Amino acid sequence: MASLYDGAVQNLIDELSRLPGIGPKSAQRIAFYILEESKDDAQALIEAVKAVKEHVHFCSICGNVTENDICSICADPRRSNNVICVVEEAKDIAAIEKTHEYRGKYHVLGGAINPIQGIGPDDLRIRSLLERIGNGSVHEVILATDPNIEGEATAAYISRLLTPFDIVVSRLASGLPMGGDLEYADEMTLSRAFEGRRRIQGNSQHAIIEPDQTAQRQHLA
Amino acid sequence: MASLYDGAVQNLIDELSRLPGIGPKSAQRIAFYILEESKDDAQALIEAVKAVKEHVHFCSICGNVTENDICSICADPRRSNNVICVVEEAKDIAAIEKTHEYRGKYHVLGGAINPIQGIGPDDLRIRSLLERIGNGSVHEVILATDPNIEGEATAAYISRLLTPFDIVVSRLASGLPMGGDLEYADEMTLSRAFEGRRRIQGNSQHAIIEPDQTAQRQHLA
Repeated sequence: MASLYDGAVQNLIDELSRLPGIGPKSAQRIAFYILEESKDDAQALIEAVKAVKEHVHFCSICGNVTENDICSICADPRRSNNVICVVEEAKDIAAIEKTHEYRGKYHVLGGAINPIQGIGPDDLRIRSLLERIGNGSVHEVILATDPNIEGEATAAYISRLLTPFDIVVSRLASGLPMGGDLEYADEMTLSRAFEGRRRIQGNSQHAIIEPDQTAQRQHLA
Repeated sequence: MASLYDGAVQNLIDELSRLPGIGPKSAQRIAFYILEESKDDAQALIEAVKAVKEHVHFCSICGNVTENDICSICADPRRSNNVICVVEEAKDIAAIEKTHEYRGKYHVLGGAINPIQGIGPDDLRIRSLLERIGNGSVHEVILATDPNIEGEATAAYISRLLTPFDIVVSRLASGLPMGGDLEYADEMTLSRAFEGRRRIQGNSQHAIIEPDQTAQRQHLA
């Protein structure tokens, strides 16, 4: 969009357009909203950005965001130290916490292995994960990286690193999203849903045809 | 979304959620983006918001946004003073300017008549429009308020106020959007497109059946 506004308005539109998910049209709409709102409201936004940059940093144990040295989850004595859930981003923690299913600790990698973007294992918080596991209280590591190429590669890489440890390594189930529609599921998701299918009843003498190595190899071929 | 973050992060998410078109998910994404970007980039955003609140106000003639007393369009001697295009919001000016079709001046009403939201004619910059027209150099007023109920009502109201003046009052054409699909046009738009149809060739003895008063009355009935 050509610059149609005087300096300050266009500058704010440009700054807002930098933010993720905000295109030039939304940026213009937000800029005008800020322009028309009260000085106090604009000041509240400024203070909120400032406070985040000044007071918030990453938990020295797990990498979650916190205003203290250690985040509220790591500091919570009611949460189990026996299981660590490994996620790519701090915001993934919020998504998992909302399920109220998980009462262990977390470890934030800070991304996923992505050769195209030049992100290798050394750019992720993998060493500190191994140190935490080396301390001995961990029984299970849940690899909850994203179910895409980078996340799968990262999970596979970390899983290999964890072979020397006497712990369970698990991965979140892939399959059809709840409330979704089989008809609209992509092939990859549907194929994972088949591989990961669970027996719900029936004669236990007849074994379910397991998602075995052969099937895996056929999929990768 | 429950507040899953420590104070400052949640506070920034709340502040961002207030902005138009930003839901809690986008707010979280943007908050984390700000959290992870450099201090300089965050500062640039803060300065941009500050500058807009400190330096930008509304043109004393037309109500457009400007950092000076008079906006660049009102101050442009190459633009005609004979025609005023009346819009609801300053951002509508940018949309019209992008067409490069219009070389007159503007007048920003600051909204449209909307009884439900309690916005009456006195809340809009209508008095200053009449003053500008009263100065005598205006030959045409183009009513470019939005083609919705509020915009139409506002155009009708202003049009009535302008009857005493010896000027042309026009309204932007309503009809099918270019690049659109007749099949997907709503009834209202299609009916306006019929009413406003233009002769493109043919025997001029056979008159096009005009969008006359009768047709109008039938539509309103």
